[in-house]
Amino acid sequence: MIKVGIIGATGYAGQELVRLLMGHKDVTIKYYSSKSYVGKRYDEVYPNMLNIVGDICVEDNLVDMAKEVDVIFTATPHAYISSLINEDILSNAKVIDLSADFRLNNQAVFEKWYNIKHESFQFVEEAVYGLSEIYRDDIKNARLIANPGCYPTCSILSLYPLLKEGLVDKDSIIIDAKSGVSGAGRSVSLNTIYCEVNESMKAYGISTHRHAPEIEEQLSMACGNDIAINFTPHLVPMNRGIYTTAYANLLSNYSYDEVKEIYNKYYKNENFIRILEEGVYPETKWVEASNYMDINFKIDNRTNRIIVVSAIDNLVKGAAGQAVQNMNIMFGLKENEGLNIVPIFP
Amino acid sequence: MIKVGIIGATGYAGQELVRLLMGHKDVTIKYYSSKSYVGKRYDEVYPNMLNIVGDICVEDNLVDMAKEVDVIFTATPHAYISSLINEDILSNAKVIDLSADFRLNNQAVFEKWYNIKHESFQFVEEAVYGLSEIYRDDIKNARLIANPGCYPTCSILSLYPLLKEGLVDKDSIIIDAKSGVSGAGRSVSLNTIYCEVNESMKAYGISTHRHAPEIEEQLSMACGNDIAINFTPHLVPMNRGIYTTAYANLLSNYSYDEVKEIYNKYYKNENFIRILEEGVYPETKWVEASNYMDINFKIDNRTNRIIVVSAIDNLVKGAAGQAVQNMNIMFGLKENEGLNIVPIFP
Amino acid sequence: MIKVGIIGATGYAGQELVRLLMGHKDVTIKYYSSKSYVGKRYDEVYPNMLNIVGDICVEDNLVDMAKEVDVIFTATPHAYISSLINEDILSNAKVIDLSADFRLNNQAVFEKWYNIKHESFQFVEEAVYGLSEIYRDDIKNARLIANPGCYPTCSILSLYPLLKEGLVDKDSIIIDAKSGVSGAGRSVSLNTIYCEVNESMKAYGISTHRHAPEIEEQLSMACGNDIAINFTPHLVPMNRGIYTTAYANLLSNYSYDEVKEIYNKYYKNENFIRILEEGVYPETKWVEASNYMDINFKIDNRTNRIIVVSAIDNLVKGAAGQAVQNMNIMFGLKENEGLNIVPIFP
Amino acid sequence: MIKVGIIGATGYAGQELVRLLMGHKDVTIKYYSSKSYVGKRYDEVYPNMLNIVGDICVEDNLVDMAKEVDVIFTATPHAYISSLINEDILSNAKVIDLSADFRLNNQAVFEKWYNIKHESFQFVEEAVYGLSEIYRDDIKNARLIANPGCYPTCSILSLYPLLKEGLVDKDSIIIDAKSGVSGAGRSVSLNTIYCEVNESMKAYGISTHRHAPEIEEQLSMACGNDIAINFTPHLVPMNRGIYTTAYANLLSNYSYDEVKEIYNKYYKNENFIRILEEGVYPETKWVEASNYMDINFKIDNRTNRIIVVSAIDNLVKGAAGQAVQNMNIMFGLKENEGLNIVPIFP
Repeated sequence: MIKVGIIGATGYAGQELVRLLMGHKDVTIKYYSSKSYVGKRYDEVYPNMLNIVGDICVEDNLVDMAKEVDVIFTATPHAYISSLINEDILSNAKVIDLSADFRLNNQAVFEKWYNIKHESFQFVEEAVYGLSEIYRDDIKNARLIANPGCYPTCSILSLYPLLKEGLVDKDSIIIDAKSGVSGAGRSVSLNTIYCEVNESMKAYGISTHRHAPEIEEQLSMACGNDIAINFTPHLVPMNRGIYTTAYANLLSNYSYDEVKEIYNKYYKNENFIRILEEGVYPETKWVEASNYMDINFKIDNRTNRIIVVSAIDNLVKGAAGQAVQNMNIMFGLKENEGLNIVPIFP
Repeated sequence: MIKVGIIGATGYAGQELVRLLMGHKDVTIKYYSSKSYVGKRYDEVYPNMLNIVGDICVEDNLVDMAKEVDVIFTATPHAYISSLINEDILSNAKVIDLSADFRLNNQAVFEKWYNIKHESFQFVEEAVYGLSEIYRDDIKNARLIANPGCYPTCSILSLYPLLKEGLVDKDSIIIDAKSGVSGAGRSVSLNTIYCEVNESMKAYGISTHRHAPEIEEQLSMACGNDIAINFTPHLVPMNRGIYTTAYANLLSNYSYDEVKEIYNKYYKNENFIRILEEGVYPETKWVEASNYMDINFKIDNRTNRIIVVSAIDNLVKGAAGQAVQNMNIMFGLKENEGLNIVPIFP
Repeated sequence: MIKVGIIGATGYAGQELVRLLMGHKDVTIKYYSSKSYVGKRYDEVYPNMLNIVGDICVEDNLVDMAKEVDVIFTATPHAYISSLINEDILSNAKVIDLSADFRLNNQAVFEKWYNIKHESFQFVEEAVYGLSEIYRDDIKNARLIANPGCYPTCSILSLYPLLKEGLVDKDSIIIDAKSGVSGAGRSVSLNTIYCEVNESMKAYGISTHRHAPEIEEQLSMACGNDIAINFTPHLVPMNRGIYTTAYANLLSNYSYDEVKEIYNKYYKNENFIRILEEGVYPETKWVEASNYMDINFKIDNRTNRIIVVSAIDNLVKGAAGQAVQNMNIMFGLKENEGLNIVPIFP
Repeated sequence: MIKVGIIGATGYAGQELVRLLMGHKDVTIKYYSSKSYVGKRYDEVYPNMLNIVGDICVEDNLVDMAKEVDVIFTATPHAYISSLINEDILSNAKVIDLSADFRLNNQAVFEKWYNIKHESFQFVEEAVYGLSEIYRDDIKNARLIANPGCYPTCSILSLYPLLKEGLVDKDSIIIDAKSGVSGAGRSVSLNTIYCEVNESMKAYGISTHRHAPEIEEQLSMACGNDIAINFTPHLVPMNRGIYTTAYANLLSNYSYDEVKEIYNKYYKNENFIRILEEGVYPETKWVEASNYMDINFKIDNRTNRIIVVSAIDNLVKGAAGQAVQNMNIMFGLKENEGLNIVPIFP
């Protein structure tokens, strides 16, 4: 059994990790750590867990925990894990970090967008960006995984084949993204109370959202050039789900089938990416609670643009599910172990 | 492997059966039958099932199907299965009927409330009411299960111990019930379109809902007397969930702990019934997508009434989950096989 | 023009008052006072008010405000206005208090349920309970109005005619109530963030909610005897709306028409109470944003109980709308001035 | 009093017209016509209208109705009014058509996108496109108004100043649009039942939606060149609201203030367009139930693109409200008569 510790187990991503790992036959969770609920039973914090997880939430102690578990998942605010990580920890346990601390390869970019000094940038070099479908080989041997953000997962996987294969103008990329409310976490603020969100939608962080540089860096690596994109997130009144609508100018006239072949080349054998039939577009509900990403595209011959639409569950493929997928890769398990989840409908 | 056929596989309850059985290690589904989608791939009808169920929906033929499978689940409109069932079918395969056809022991009551002649009442005698926690022993050897309705499951389990033990006035029972919209099924009507339901709630079928006689019959058997209750269902703007708030006059002064002991006597060892701590009341979200029923109660000393509140997922414990639980009992499997589902939150 | 000051203008009830008074031709709002947003423009706090209300929120000073306005609406937490009110204020301006401070005639009951000493109980005697349909004559000459709670408005109006006319057993009353989330106000807490409320429902405060004694006191006055009821509030995932389902044992066999006549006697000429046709039950959406209460009932001959169902918009008839209705009565205006609002659908 | 007839009074747009006109002091509605509900009382079709509109729904007879009213609103499926309109009707009454029949100036474009022959294209020349802010002068004297679609209203007003003033590359325009579910009307289909829409979102009609040519035609007229855009509508789980996020490449480096000046030039004095403060972006809730459009923009210097975000209520500014605004203009009334509605929040 793989022994697991979770730092930040009482946030929504942490709780989703618990849900998924409860169904994983090779895993046992040893520690549930929390900032806000130390000393409380986990099922008091999340009553859905009654009779399932009765453990007491503990303070986090990364150093000690590393000695007793095989892998630590950290689902914490940014700048927290990077202030604690060290060689000692990583020599004892693998770390899969769901925060943003090790995602950006460029320190200046990190410090500008996050407006904070990075305290352990040396570990960024070693960290592997945990987009499983793209970095699978590196993930296998990694000690430290930078688990991608929810928006970046959906955005990068949407466009990666197009940029890698040079089908689109790298300067033409616009990503219009929509998210359910659980993306904001379980923290309490006026912006997330029910009546302010329900029956409404809005854009926010236009061109200033921190997931933009993450997407840009990965897409730049895909095409071999630095690129700048437009990224506009929107808040949608639903619990779960990310939907991205990505636009790019095609560099030539391509048919649907030609582009489909490119997507097939990259994703056909992927367990968790489902390319829909022509004319069928994703709906977030179709992937709910699962690790799937559904994807399809439309070519508009009049403008010679391609529109790529994709959907994930932000808490699964956009966070906890991908973290488990990465763990499976790191420990040589079947990649979909514990992740064979039928999306819940309705 | 237990071979399964599903009649009515393309309704919401049918689809939930598919979801659950996909995660059941001892089961293989042989037939997906449907009235409306014959010839269509199942994942075209339910795109969440892409890459999971690619089978073609077939017409239902109960007689032939019975020869090739071990158990048939029927999730059909009322009066349909009762018009088809016969000895031949039941001698070949077990039948778990999710419709109302075999739930009521009294033919006159059935025909009055359903306003239709019952065409095979002889099978009602043999049928076992599939409320697993109460009729477990009979279910083991049954050929035909009348799987309870969603409201009755939650209502009966809420009050059964109180009536069985004679704690409450049998003539004082009021059940105020609330349901998510999936209870109305996937059929299309003005009453269930989004804008008519969203941001609204209403009572319906006050004292005329067909689940009332089902609850009354079962509670009458519990207390040994014919009783009449008030049952008021309400529609609530959410996909899933049944919530029942049941009121009864206590026949004596009981403390919380005394009543708790009674509930413990009946439910303490039940896998799927979770009695909450004093002062903590169920929320439908805490059982979502799972087979749990959460229950608690409050004694009001001023009025000497007990208020029992319970929550289930109408599609799971209120339909498909309980059907699988019954199948497990009938085939000698672990009762929670395939049903160890962590409720999804949020 | 009637000059108005609002204390607590930045809560949901306060904002609803502003919305309604903006459409009232005889009123001008002089002061928007707030605890949390002093110095901010009102339309920054509520951007829906852009170009409509650009005033700056001020600190509340009841004494000074009373000298400059004709009526003060107070939409504040309980125990606040009762700690400030005095003869001086009331001699200068009328006060319509939307909090609970002056609603209960029995000081001991108030102090027990609110767990706080009442600091100015002498004013309770003078205060008129502002249920417009019942206390209209007293309201005309009142200086101080105790505007009813949202649940009590819907509950009392539901049952008042039955108790006043002695049709039901006073000891048999059960009120099962449901509320949208705006009833919890604009304060921020884990219980009201979107993901905790959405797609879920729950009972809360069973037999302990503070609106219970308010309902009991008024219904006791209606029937001339002290009564105790069961009151169970539930939270429903929608912004607005109160729905009450009230149960009582009929003292005799009454037909629908006989009882309808009783309701007609009390409500037929009421502007804001709509008695629906037999068999049609209220939906909260049908009264949204309006001051209407929709009501109907069902007699169950089998149990000889009556079930009365009613719906209001908690922020309008349950708070701000009724406050304006009371103001209209106090100032001799048409009772529906500014309240002729077509319910918004969908 | 202006006498009004409504054809299609029982759809959502028709009902919204009724709501608005009930609050319009210069209007009286003479006819409520309907296809599906002839002979029914209007408040049976829309119970929110109880005690407000008790008229009986009648069959539509455009010719006769025109003789008895001053203006006819038609809220009907496309190709219906264009098959009935004639000189006789227009010489007797003004017609404000909320369908698509007279919106497109190019017959071939109409017939291609709507896949039907236009039966009275001669009237298109006379019809005025009823985007009040842009065609106000023409509307004054029009007999026939082509009331704009919901998406086009929000999209065109978002970009009109930029194209008119030549600030953006006409070939770079992308409009990512989101709509609440009432945009689909009150018709019944699997796609709009509650459980299929709730807790989900999706793109649909990518590059094939019929509002695209309407937007293109108007923006082409604004910039004096034929342009093709990308238009992607999405369905969002809420009753009301349109949100458009429009992207365009700026032709030069402009500051926020420079562009703001352009928007001010066009919209500063507009009653119903609210330009928000820098950094504040629209939310659909802030305009709910009102005729406002809220708008703001962001300039991304890194990509030199402008992102314009706007919100309207699809049933008001996107349909019935704009129709009333046009009526006010046509009849020489104050443009905001009957439309001074405070947006409802929450």
